[in-house]
Amino acid sequence: MKVIIVGGVAGGASCAARLRRLDEKAEILMVERGPYVSYANCGLPYHVGGVIQDESSLLVATEQMFRAIFGVEVRTNCEAIAIAPKKKTVDLRDVATGTVTTEAYDKLVLSPGAAPIRPPLPGIDLPGIFSVRTVPDARHIREWLHQHEAPRTGLDSYTGFQTVTRPQRAVVVGGGFIGLEMVENFAHLGLDVTLIEKLDQVMPPLDAEMARLVERYLVKHGVHLELKDGVAGFRQSADGSLEVLTAGGKSHAADVVVLAIGVRPETALAKAAGLEIGQRGGIRVDEHMRTSDPDILAVGDAVEVKDYVTGQWTLIPLAGPANRQGRIAADVIAGRDARYRGTQGTSICKIFEGEIGQTGASEKLLTILGSTDFEKVYVYQNSHAGYYPGAKMMAIKVLFRKTDGRLLGAQVLSEDGVAKRVDAFAMAIQMGATVYDLEEAELCYAPPFGSAKDPVNFAGMVAGNLLRGDMPIVHWDGIGSGLLLDVRNPAELEVESVPGAFHIPLPQLRSRLGELPRDREILVICRSAVRAYYATRILLQNGFTARNISGGMLARSHRAEA
Amino acid sequence: MKVIIVGGVAGGASCAARLRRLDEKAEILMVERGPYVSYANCGLPYHVGGVIQDESSLLVATEQMFRAIFGVEVRTNCEAIAIAPKKKTVDLRDVATGTVTTEAYDKLVLSPGAAPIRPPLPGIDLPGIFSVRTVPDARHIREWLHQHEAPRTGLDSYTGFQTVTRPQRAVVVGGGFIGLEMVENFAHLGLDVTLIEKLDQVMPPLDAEMARLVERYLVKHGVHLELKDGVAGFRQSADGSLEVLTAGGKSHAADVVVLAIGVRPETALAKAAGLEIGQRGGIRVDEHMRTSDPDILAVGDAVEVKDYVTGQWTLIPLAGPANRQGRIAADVIAGRDARYRGTQGTSICKIFEGEIGQTGASEKLLTILGSTDFEKVYVYQNSHAGYYPGAKMMAIKVLFRKTDGRLLGAQVLSEDGVAKRVDAFAMAIQMGATVYDLEEAELCYAPPFGSAKDPVNFAGMVAGNLLRGDMPIVHWDGIGSGLLLDVRNPAELEVESVPGAFHIPLPQLRSRLGELPRDREILVICRSAVRAYYATRILLQNGFTARNISGGMLARSHRAEA
Repeated sequence: MKVIIVGGVAGGASCAARLRRLDEKAEILMVERGPYVSYANCGLPYHVGGVIQDESSLLVATEQMFRAIFGVEVRTNCEAIAIAPKKKTVDLRDVATGTVTTEAYDKLVLSPGAAPIRPPLPGIDLPGIFSVRTVPDARHIREWLHQHEAPRTGLDSYTGFQTVTRPQRAVVVGGGFIGLEMVENFAHLGLDVTLIEKLDQVMPPLDAEMARLVERYLVKHGVHLELKDGVAGFRQSADGSLEVLTAGGKSHAADVVVLAIGVRPETALAKAAGLEIGQRGGIRVDEHMRTSDPDILAVGDAVEVKDYVTGQWTLIPLAGPANRQGRIAADVIAGRDARYRGTQGTSICKIFEGEIGQTGASEKLLTILGSTDFEKVYVYQNSHAGYYPGAKMMAIKVLFRKTDGRLLGAQVLSEDGVAKRVDAFAMAIQMGATVYDLEEAELCYAPPFGSAKDPVNFAGMVAGNLLRGDMPIVHWDGIGSGLLLDVRNPAELEVESVPGAFHIPLPQLRSRLGELPRDREILVICRSAVRAYYATRILLQNGFTARNISGGMLARSHRAEA
Repeated sequence: MKVIIVGGVAGGASCAARLRRLDEKAEILMVERGPYVSYANCGLPYHVGGVIQDESSLLVATEQMFRAIFGVEVRTNCEAIAIAPKKKTVDLRDVATGTVTTEAYDKLVLSPGAAPIRPPLPGIDLPGIFSVRTVPDARHIREWLHQHEAPRTGLDSYTGFQTVTRPQRAVVVGGGFIGLEMVENFAHLGLDVTLIEKLDQVMPPLDAEMARLVERYLVKHGVHLELKDGVAGFRQSADGSLEVLTAGGKSHAADVVVLAIGVRPETALAKAAGLEIGQRGGIRVDEHMRTSDPDILAVGDAVEVKDYVTGQWTLIPLAGPANRQGRIAADVIAGRDARYRGTQGTSICKIFEGEIGQTGASEKLLTILGSTDFEKVYVYQNSHAGYYPGAKMMAIKVLFRKTDGRLLGAQVLSEDGVAKRVDAFAMAIQMGATVYDLEEAELCYAPPFGSAKDPVNFAGMVAGNLLRGDMPIVHWDGIGSGLLLDVRNPAELEVESVPGAFHIPLPQLRSRLGELPRDREILVICRSAVRAYYATRILLQNGFTARNISGGMLARSHRAEA
């Protein structure tokens, strides 16, 4: 059996290695258009930022390793340019020489990845405008930064010499994972960074009100944030630097520009071969990673996958799923009944000291799909026991089905402990857990790591209280004509109060019930909705109609900026 | 309805607060023998160590808060001394005055906790010997350390004054969670610390070979570790300091001693009331937290719980379960059908920079229970992408059922990212996941947080490969007469080799198969069992009989010291 694998990173490389372990005799040829196989493209922003100094450390497995250990023939700088599915051949072009050879296959695996989107804007090919997808991309940015060090205006205070510095102004276009990582890394290098995002939020997998927290955080860290403004073009200034022109008519000066406006599945080869392309523009595969031609499989960023939570076709270009798909494709080729269960979109991003993670469906997505059988809660808890140093406020949004409590998605932001919680939520979603299971989850607790009631438990309890009818809630955007009742302490109101809210501090509530109306709904406010929950319970049991305003003032602040 | 809650920490406090939320009208009286309710006893070691400076920050909720917010009558320094189940009364003694009053109840909740074990050894009541269970305990240790600062032998180099320093020698007796946390905190204060443990390992929930890693780590951090030696008594030296005498005949000088040899459920009150006590010595309760008297419930460290994995009765004194049990007891009293699902023993401990976590059953426990339907794998992986700074080696042991792959337990040690993995394993166990589910888990990945194949995935893959028959394994303690084949590089063998092992570096294996015997089993060795897996696959597919030595050299080193 001869297997050709097109694309030698993530999915392709995983497939090759796994296939060899399952089939010592198969002839395996892996071709890669670029100069490297199995490199760590997730590390590229950190290499640009100098956090990862050594380029070679990004090469997870080398060509030589594939040959020596896996007996896989590897051709780098070799592009697959055409497939003849009936003849079962693929044409391969040597990128350096242009020589084309034709290779026959028994099974073909496509792992071509996705290409950075580069819209045909005026000036887009000006020097100094980069994407961050390959090792050479990162190298080019580093070289550019090195070559364009500008003289500093002053003298070095210690040596007295005129010193040089790096370019001072970076513009990052696109506020997704790569964009945010590039923002952090440019800032780490001391650049003044502007982030331009066409949408009204950064981090598209998050819901907008959670993204507000990220945006506020970026601004706090000195990033110039330009939302709701797309790039219209680029221009070279008289001094040789760049100008980024926006649709809104602004101009941002830049010494370096990175385009991180997303990726598009590399489907040209598949399309030309007549393989089915899905409605989202990726190669369509079945659960065995087989394309519409059963002898051609496809994996990684180029394929559409089933969203594990919603069951919809989607494009989720992430390394973990690509690796698993490669492994499954190898299993299938080796005759095993392996199936891909779909992708649930678990992801995390570091931005300065902040950690932003999510898994499962967002409210935005559920709404687009027309789902109404869901509810959400916001939870604000310490990342670990508040009395142990270093605890950070953690913001969690959890989405779940109203009818049965099934967990649908979670978004978590903090400067500490996000991965621990997202992984618990991710495993819960994978296993079909409900919010009641979250209440009972037995997670790591010691003061440096969590709390006896972990934020994950807390999220489950808030959701469970809601579903059991113990705590009716309302969200800030759904407040109608109810009486707003603020149960915080007077000192807290001095910092920030809600216009029109009636004020009874929680400890006085039982003795002042007579001041509250019985013919009007009472909507209860506190800082994080915990005391408001206590108050809501008191009111409900005393015959009032009351709801807790979910997430309290903490949720209000990031909603208000939406 | 009048509810009396005996014990105002963790379980008792949770119960009181939850019950008030469910029942605004119930009369709730919470009595606590000590001076504080709802204090953070998990923080006590860190308060002794000065990491948590302010004692008041350990008071999670005060007596006043319970009164004002929850309308709960609280009596501190008030001990329940007798229950009359038929009359449904409890006798309460004011600790200060000795006055006894009798209170009637409709429902009684016992949350008396557990008491530190203090064996009747000679000299155990000498000053300077402490337990760490209450806020006053921690305060007494701090005061003792402060009062017993000894004059330094030299002069302060800056001021020229004779300076004082803290006591220099601490002995901690008992190597469980509290013992290890006290070791760290004494070391943090600059004390020279000796840890004495009667058993042959520290950290009893871990299997011995995993505890070896902790022990090695303690020694590396300058801790004097004395295993397999119990304390026989204590003596005061001529200079006023203490001597800790061991069963093995040793004497350890100490300026301060902490006993952390475990806790015993506080069952005297329950026993005297005729309530059923379980075979493990805790109060027996049903899944609704009801004792043998249906009007008396019990929660927390004093009760026996069902082990969620094994189904056996057990004592697991942890804060998270105590809180959940308190909540469930409140639900049950309020007439709800709440059930406790059992405890799976999820726990974590920080020791210096190390993190030690576990969940579910250990091999030791499964063996004691006579189970044979389980297998184990050892996995050594980076805590996050190796190319991103700060990645640490992570050691994982996973236990699972042979018949169906059901996950039974996990033990994780590293200096980074342990909680993230233990929580994923914990949620997996809760939801009945198999090792195949771990293979497919979609967990947080970005270079600072994980790897595209997370160590949790990796553990699942290793276990899955084993169960599918793709990778027969043998453990170091099960090696018989097979040929040991070391497939590491020559440079690695120079650092540490295995006596009698035949050596073929992995890249040469395919071309040197002729050198290997076909009539003898081949047991393959590498550093972490990854390359040995590749080699085992090559050998098996070429007709050899081969097994991978689980965990490789990394597993050997800590086994060897066992």
